[in-house]
Amino acid sequence: MVIHSHYSKSILFSIVTLILSLSGCREKTQVEQHASGTSYLDESGRAPYDYVDPFIGTGGEGHTYPGATVPFGFVQVSPDTEFKYFRQSFPWCAGYQYGDSTIVGFSHTHFSGTGHSDLGDVLLMPVTGKLQLIPGPSAYPDSGYRSRFSHDQEQAEPGYYAVRLKDDDISVELTATEHVGFHQYTYPVTDTGRIILDLTQSIYTYDDKVRWAYLRIENDTLVTGYRQTSGWAPDRYVYFAISFSTPFRSYGIVREDQMEYFGFGPRAPHLTGYPDRGGRKIKAYFNFPDPHAKTIGVKVGLSAVDITGALNNMMTECPGWNFDELRSMAKQRWENQLNRIIIEGSEEEKAIFYTSMYHTLLAPVIYTDADGRYRGLDQQIHHADGFTNYTIYSLWDTYRAAHPLFTITQPDRVPDMIRSMLAHYDQSVHHILPVWSFHGNETWCMIGYHAVSVIADAYRKNIRDFDAEHAFQAMKASATYGPYDGLGHYMHYGFVPIDKETEGASKTLEYAYDDWAIAQMAKAMGNEEDHRYFMARSASYRNIWDSSTGFMRAKRSDNTFREPFDPFYAQYGGDYTEGNAWQYTWYVPHDPQGLIRMMGGPEAFAGRLDSLFMLEAGKEKYGHVEDIAGLIGQYAHGNEPSQHIAYLYVYAGMPWKTQERIHQIMQNLFDNTPYGICGNEDCGQMSAWYIFSSLGFYPVCPGSNQYVIGTPAVQKASIFLENGNVFTIKTVNRSEKNIYIQSMTLNSKPYTRYYVDHSTLTEGGELEFIMGPEPVKRKLNGDMIPYSMSNE
Amino acid sequence: MVIHSHYSKSILFSIVTLILSLSGCREKTQVEQHASGTSYLDESGRAPYDYVDPFIGTGGEGHTYPGATVPFGFVQVSPDTEFKYFRQSFPWCAGYQYGDSTIVGFSHTHFSGTGHSDLGDVLLMPVTGKLQLIPGPSAYPDSGYRSRFSHDQEQAEPGYYAVRLKDDDISVELTATEHVGFHQYTYPVTDTGRIILDLTQSIYTYDDKVRWAYLRIENDTLVTGYRQTSGWAPDRYVYFAISFSTPFRSYGIVREDQMEYFGFGPRAPHLTGYPDRGGRKIKAYFNFPDPHAKTIGVKVGLSAVDITGALNNMMTECPGWNFDELRSMAKQRWENQLNRIIIEGSEEEKAIFYTSMYHTLLAPVIYTDADGRYRGLDQQIHHADGFTNYTIYSLWDTYRAAHPLFTITQPDRVPDMIRSMLAHYDQSVHHILPVWSFHGNETWCMIGYHAVSVIADAYRKNIRDFDAEHAFQAMKASATYGPYDGLGHYMHYGFVPIDKETEGASKTLEYAYDDWAIAQMAKAMGNEEDHRYFMARSASYRNIWDSSTGFMRAKRSDNTFREPFDPFYAQYGGDYTEGNAWQYTWYVPHDPQGLIRMMGGPEAFAGRLDSLFMLEAGKEKYGHVEDIAGLIGQYAHGNEPSQHIAYLYVYAGMPWKTQERIHQIMQNLFDNTPYGICGNEDCGQMSAWYIFSSLGFYPVCPGSNQYVIGTPAVQKASIFLENGNVFTIKTVNRSEKNIYIQSMTLNSKPYTRYYVDHSTLTEGGELEFIMGPEPVKRKLNGDMIPYSMSNE
Repeated sequence: MVIHSHYSKSILFSIVTLILSLSGCREKTQVEQHASGTSYLDESGRAPYDYVDPFIGTGGEGHTYPGATVPFGFVQVSPDTEFKYFRQSFPWCAGYQYGDSTIVGFSHTHFSGTGHSDLGDVLLMPVTGKLQLIPGPSAYPDSGYRSRFSHDQEQAEPGYYAVRLKDDDISVELTATEHVGFHQYTYPVTDTGRIILDLTQSIYTYDDKVRWAYLRIENDTLVTGYRQTSGWAPDRYVYFAISFSTPFRSYGIVREDQMEYFGFGPRAPHLTGYPDRGGRKIKAYFNFPDPHAKTIGVKVGLSAVDITGALNNMMTECPGWNFDELRSMAKQRWENQLNRIIIEGSEEEKAIFYTSMYHTLLAPVIYTDADGRYRGLDQQIHHADGFTNYTIYSLWDTYRAAHPLFTITQPDRVPDMIRSMLAHYDQSVHHILPVWSFHGNETWCMIGYHAVSVIADAYRKNIRDFDAEHAFQAMKASATYGPYDGLGHYMHYGFVPIDKETEGASKTLEYAYDDWAIAQMAKAMGNEEDHRYFMARSASYRNIWDSSTGFMRAKRSDNTFREPFDPFYAQYGGDYTEGNAWQYTWYVPHDPQGLIRMMGGPEAFAGRLDSLFMLEAGKEKYGHVEDIAGLIGQYAHGNEPSQHIAYLYVYAGMPWKTQERIHQIMQNLFDNTPYGICGNEDCGQMSAWYIFSSLGFYPVCPGSNQYVIGTPAVQKASIFLENGNVFTIKTVNRSEKNIYIQSMTLNSKPYTRYYVDHSTLTEGGELEFIMGPEPVKRKLNGDMIPYSMSNE
Repeated sequence: MVIHSHYSKSILFSIVTLILSLSGCREKTQVEQHASGTSYLDESGRAPYDYVDPFIGTGGEGHTYPGATVPFGFVQVSPDTEFKYFRQSFPWCAGYQYGDSTIVGFSHTHFSGTGHSDLGDVLLMPVTGKLQLIPGPSAYPDSGYRSRFSHDQEQAEPGYYAVRLKDDDISVELTATEHVGFHQYTYPVTDTGRIILDLTQSIYTYDDKVRWAYLRIENDTLVTGYRQTSGWAPDRYVYFAISFSTPFRSYGIVREDQMEYFGFGPRAPHLTGYPDRGGRKIKAYFNFPDPHAKTIGVKVGLSAVDITGALNNMMTECPGWNFDELRSMAKQRWENQLNRIIIEGSEEEKAIFYTSMYHTLLAPVIYTDADGRYRGLDQQIHHADGFTNYTIYSLWDTYRAAHPLFTITQPDRVPDMIRSMLAHYDQSVHHILPVWSFHGNETWCMIGYHAVSVIADAYRKNIRDFDAEHAFQAMKASATYGPYDGLGHYMHYGFVPIDKETEGASKTLEYAYDDWAIAQMAKAMGNEEDHRYFMARSASYRNIWDSSTGFMRAKRSDNTFREPFDPFYAQYGGDYTEGNAWQYTWYVPHDPQGLIRMMGGPEAFAGRLDSLFMLEAGKEKYGHVEDIAGLIGQYAHGNEPSQHIAYLYVYAGMPWKTQERIHQIMQNLFDNTPYGICGNEDCGQMSAWYIFSSLGFYPVCPGSNQYVIGTPAVQKASIFLENGNVFTIKTVNRSEKNIYIQSMTLNSKPYTRYYVDHSTLTEGGELEFIMGPEPVKRKLNGDMIPYSMSNE
């Protein structure tokens, strides 16, 4: 039987010339600037790529996925082990939990490390045997198309994932380009080879989440369509084009569990029946009953714009069928990224470090199609003129360390990330910057207007290839948009009153920092008026300081503190955001000295910090707040409000205490197992914390251009900067016990400051840490201590 | 209080230059070719426009709407009196029933005369008093925002509608451009002036029909958004831009009957809260508590493409606020169209005739945005290069007389209508021409592939400004797509077997005619092979002739007729489509002589025809088939299968019988009241029947280039053709009793044929009918009788 593949003229016409101009399976090459001539292989002959283990974080609350993607790729094609109804979906935010033993299928979009969830689009599953159109429960995998698998028949590398599906003895391999997931299925000899396409499955499932799905059998190797969902993102569109390397012999489309149409019946030769179908619940299956075609390739191109965009992305990035070539190109792209920082250390340190590097390269992702179009926040199709539009901004998390890390590792991408946020501002009916946005939607998740921190940090670091006036206008607009999360009350009262707005304490604190960041940008631009205005606002943290209890507390609009007060208690929608008073009181990154003074000086401050790391509280205090994890006393490393706290000892002149705690955190709360991330990885934030901290410093206050020194967790590290310079961290006498800095040199000269300027890094050079087993309790002079607003 | 209107930069930026280049409220002028220098005023000083009564057909089963639109306009802004759940929605297909006494509101899209329904998009309602967000039932209008009205305070003209809403004493006026509905509301002195926008209302309502709605308060005079519905059209998008002449002082958005956000609160000056919202059930209200702003203008621009398209349409077609100017421009456009045929006759004849002309200009409608973009059948956004894309193709109805009329009155638009159908073909995954399509959707409603008739008819009439090869490919593809409605079986068996496909009898008959039409196109293009193939297929009607009963009957695939058989019985999904054996047996428009022979000759044939017009059957035979209406015996003028039948006497050589029946039908089944259309008007088909029949001839067999002569129902008629020629119909001695043609002259020479060639019309000239009270029962020679395939 000969089946002719005739392409849909309407859709494919525009890309025919493109196909003709390309040959083989070749990706658009991207210029990746990095130091050349360096060997990235260590003494065991292994490169950073070889150390990355995508399974790290896939167990517990890390919420990472093990599947295939490329750096900042829009597509993350990855196995899904469970799709749970939304109230149960937290563990499966990334579709996969390491503890599971069955796989539902392989979908194409996944967040890395988030605590809220969505995505899981366009699920494919290869099967044999009797046609089954529901996955079935994990406890009874035989009742559906779901399959058992085991980790000893599973493999993951950056850009590559493989697993053997036990039930039907099918080997699955996955690789990816920016917009394409490439599947390779190897079947046993069978006459019932089949691929299921289930458009009803989704991460964070609830009734009617899939608003509409549409499927179109263009010919016997090409299927297109789209899906609209109203999930966490209320109005999200994913268009797809699915290309099979082998023509399917027949197909079926199922709607609302009714078998509606069969394709390629006995009487009609081609595209039998009604080969397109729209509906709320659409599934399809494609039969390949050819015992000779054991290996079937499937390419899935995605777009947020339209089907043409999806097809064009697929044909542009991956016109051919050579899986191995594509896989090796993905590897090359990963190596280009991973080789930007080379460390020396133990096997475990390398695994954690390079996997952390890997995890910082998974968000935000490239949102523009190959032709430059993208779907904006206003749901209009835009063309990104002169920039690449990025999406997935988990800003409450990533402004802390992930974006500051990008100013070192990705300075070429930072301007486009900012331009993307400015496009969001332009398209926003509120005319404010993103809060937690993805795929053309604002979710309003978490608090603050931390996009301003990302922009101010970049600008102050002289990354200025964006319209600064426009950006400042956007920052100011975001900081003065009264209806947003009590901001109007904040401007009126000087704090966010808890009787008018939930989580008023944490909002006040974070707004104050953001205001400080805007002030820094204003100053750098020579705008004195706005500098003064926002500097004044940035002191607002003082307005919720309760000297009687020594905590930052929620206040009512009559200027009294809310009662009753329990510094251990946390709840969603309470006084603090995913945290309690113990955790949130330390949130004054721009003015630790101010906090120290309010607490009664360095000793009192350090004493309180010591207590933080020691006080235990019953689980009932915040057992229901899923995000509070990775505990040392009340310190919760698994969630962002704590992540700068261990560095605060430095401000009190006690860097050895920071060294001790940082060492403790790195030793106890990270490992190279699937359970090696103690809380949500959060789109690179947790990993950026680890990368900075292993290098020996951390950006406590983005926008200050300073990195506060902790204690290095590598023997040596070389940062290959975009400007061609290399900054090297070296340690002397570092060992399991020698965790304390005895002294430092910068370019062989004594270095006494407990912070590093950004410009010090970018100029290149060598920072040497001489380590020892005992803390050096030398009093620090003022200029050895990092920036605080109060000291200006 | 001063409120600044600041426009959304993202959306409006692109049209700012456009606005600047326009001034006042001025429409794009359209070149309307027609004879000039003629006075269209009759002896009473009235022009055709003055005779049009948009209320004709709004009662009973006419299903027309009284609201405002322009010729072929995408927007039909019209009052809706009821939105019923789908099983009860038949009487409200056009949103309005003349017998109703309350109005729900004014929505912007309406079919004219259909029997299936959808649309009713973007409902606005001006109100005062207590905020009410549901319309409430018609029996209790005070329980909702619905208002009482009466016909003596209601007015409708082409392009203009006005009504006084009694409950709140608000006067409403409506006018339109192609993509814009312009409302003018005059309020009493009140401090509670308000406009409701209800995106949950829809014609042909059912649960979840509104898949998603989105609203965006751009500023205090501009609101944008869109709505997706899955109704009769499974996947339909309407984007809108609503502009108010006066800033509203506050607004509210309601979702799922929850008051979600209020705008313009006391503390935040502008765009308070979250001024956009998406959801399945979205409503909004806009408050204008200004006693001085009694009259408020509202412009609503629509687009099927995107919000930018809707805004651009609005600003292009109607940048200003002069209602009267816009109304007079709409009137001018109507006059340009209505003046193409000028008749002399009674007041009633003129009212019916010119209203019929009006009704033929309401579908298909212009689907392209002002910038040339449109949403295709493939749900991709296309640019119509070099043509205007039209939508709303009720082809099973309109191929009969409406499209043939367009070859006379709209030859300039016919090529674009064909190009639009070819675009549909190109975008169709089935690669076939439209069946019943609108707004980028195929509904598969009714039977046949009658698009081929429209194309063949135009081509044979030398309207050829389209790609004929492409068109022929599309026609052939449509006629050979096996999975469509038993077409594969038809090709296999020579008829559509009733055991394999419903309505096999009517499908066989209509396919046979369509095949004949393709054959004519093939012949005209010199394609002998396809001519032979389709001519052979066009004889398929003979395969279901039952000589024992004398009816066309449904056959099983074993070549036996289905039993039991009742020639009076009809049911949906039975042997015939919306008809019975009595009605459908006459459906051989391309070969009445073949039918005459099968029936035993002209006398027997005429005898059977006589019976058709006399036989009564119990209502129970087809009481449940809503479309069978307008009965004279078994003849059902209210539905299309009957509409050519009265002309068939001519083929039997008895034109006087045709004259008698046509006169009877026109006298009894049409009047100039709201109930003056005896069945669904059907997108111009019923009116085209009336226009042709009043002029004295009718296109029994489109594609034959012949119009079969009936009896004129005008004193005189002048057809002003696009080529500058004028064809005049004159009658002599016509009166209520003188309904029989005694003789005819063409250009003063005796004319003995009982048909008129299309070329005779287009060459211009004068056809004179000499009328008398007695039939002239002269035997007709062969060349006096119109075309039949059997005579070739």
